[in-house]
Amino acid sequence: MGQGDLPRLTRDGDQPARIARGSRTETTVMKFASVTIAGRPSWGIIEDNTFCDLGALLAHRVPDLSAAIATGDLKALAMHKVEAHRYDVGDLAWLPVIPEPSKIICVGLNYEKHRKETGRAEVAHPTIFLRVADSQTGHGCPILRPKVSTQLDYEGELAVIIGKPGRYIPAAEAWSYVAGYSCYNDGSIRDWQWHTHQFSPGKNFPQTGAFGPMLVTPDEVGDLASLRLQTRLNGEVMQDAVFGDMIFDIPTLIEYASSFTPLAPGDVIVSGTPGGVGAKRKPPVWMKPGDVVEVEIDRVGLLINTIADE
Amino acid sequence: MGQGDLPRLTRDGDQPARIARGSRTETTVMKFASVTIAGRPSWGIIEDNTFCDLGALLAHRVPDLSAAIATGDLKALAMHKVEAHRYDVGDLAWLPVIPEPSKIICVGLNYEKHRKETGRAEVAHPTIFLRVADSQTGHGCPILRPKVSTQLDYEGELAVIIGKPGRYIPAAEAWSYVAGYSCYNDGSIRDWQWHTHQFSPGKNFPQTGAFGPMLVTPDEVGDLASLRLQTRLNGEVMQDAVFGDMIFDIPTLIEYASSFTPLAPGDVIVSGTPGGVGAKRKPPVWMKPGDVVEVEIDRVGLLINTIADE
Repeated sequence: MGQGDLPRLTRDGDQPARIARGSRTETTVMKFASVTIAGRPSWGIIEDNTFCDLGALLAHRVPDLSAAIATGDLKALAMHKVEAHRYDVGDLAWLPVIPEPSKIICVGLNYEKHRKETGRAEVAHPTIFLRVADSQTGHGCPILRPKVSTQLDYEGELAVIIGKPGRYIPAAEAWSYVAGYSCYNDGSIRDWQWHTHQFSPGKNFPQTGAFGPMLVTPDEVGDLASLRLQTRLNGEVMQDAVFGDMIFDIPTLIEYASSFTPLAPGDVIVSGTPGGVGAKRKPPVWMKPGDVVEVEIDRVGLLINTIADE
Repeated sequence: MGQGDLPRLTRDGDQPARIARGSRTETTVMKFASVTIAGRPSWGIIEDNTFCDLGALLAHRVPDLSAAIATGDLKALAMHKVEAHRYDVGDLAWLPVIPEPSKIICVGLNYEKHRKETGRAEVAHPTIFLRVADSQTGHGCPILRPKVSTQLDYEGELAVIIGKPGRYIPAAEAWSYVAGYSCYNDGSIRDWQWHTHQFSPGKNFPQTGAFGPMLVTPDEVGDLASLRLQTRLNGEVMQDAVFGDMIFDIPTLIEYASSFTPLAPGDVIVSGTPGGVGAKRKPPVWMKPGDVVEVEIDRVGLLINTIADE
């Protein structure tokens, strides 16, 4: 499905909760995406409504966006855009920004309002669980409600994409390990998440973790603290926070995660969701087929998914 | 390091806790291993003290043991052993049986005695967490104690290796999805496991999950219920149980896991550890450099690892 098929709840007309855009222009060479185009997976640069197909051009040495990141020089690769075939973004299907990360490290309870709504005690360390790659889906693709549950919930989050290998990365050096950012909807099957005290089953159903639309490089994003994240369900604001509200900031998360496991280019840290999840509302709000869920982050992007039954 | 370098705590002489061997002979064609031999990774068949190098012979179409399993016919591949180059097992280094599983699904609290020693409540579903592939190590290789902790603990477990793709596998059909079994030592960094209520950090340090020595096919193993697992630390029995004591049996685990995620050939279900872990002893027992830890399972094998500092 191409982006053109999506409802544009926040693109046209007046919306009650439209995020104010900064003064930056929308045109930049440093937005990268993984896509399916003309029936094959590829990667490249997004400029406004154009996709520059670097995957087809550089397939022999840079087969995917993880490999592009691993070169350590996305800017140099971006120079090839003038040679690349161009497509309208309406003609492509979006893949997860990194379709096959070697590790997807998710953070729970990283905003005070969310911690309180879950009734969890304060802890001195980040709460970590893992996702597998095939639990992901791309921008514009459906998030799937599995046949074994009706308790499908959203979790809007900032995804941090790792740029170079590292272990025991000190927080003070952590920013240099960031290749870029994207939006993530850590879709959760709540009853399966709470079958026991371990979250993994409810966090790994196929096509529940939406990741996109694209990687935006740090120099395009700037300081994170004042950036706002919103999650909207059928246009209604459900989550609304700034990253300055995180309990453990991005450098702390990178230091902690890289202490127990080596990080590699293309690995993803999904940094936690703010208060306002559907499960803790009274009555609870579950996503159902036909719903449209959006995660929008200032300067990072707008991730839109519909809900469909498996 | 070849197996020849290992202490043979249970191979020679009298041991207080030697598991009685069944009447089966030790010679069979249906034991498969992943190894490093002559500086390259390979896979093949173990017969007594000989490794038949099927990887070198079939590299063009069956590059690793996961691919061999995915053919659906290990027996047919085993017929090639007469053409394969043979090595003494003393000349190889053992890799994790499956070096790069797409999923390593671990089960916690699956024996009543262990559940009670941890003080956890009874639950109606398996407790699941995930490991990443690079947290594994092979038979005869050191288990690493990371520099950030001294609380390295053993967990002897039965590993179930999946043989074919499946989702929503009914328990009644689950046995047909099993390619084979092996021993697993789900080495755990307890303080990191208990930093929060989510286990993942303490279960994913590099080279803490020992997996081997080899895959033994179900027809070599027979009925699991009466098979005994022992974990020994420096020759002392620390864990001793039969698989009939599992709270959730293997078919139930396969049904549950395949409900939330598709299973693929080479995926691993690590089925939980019995009572007797070091952390719950008074005083606690932590593994330290120079220790030798063994996990032995009737008819499945004997996994031996030394402990080393990172």
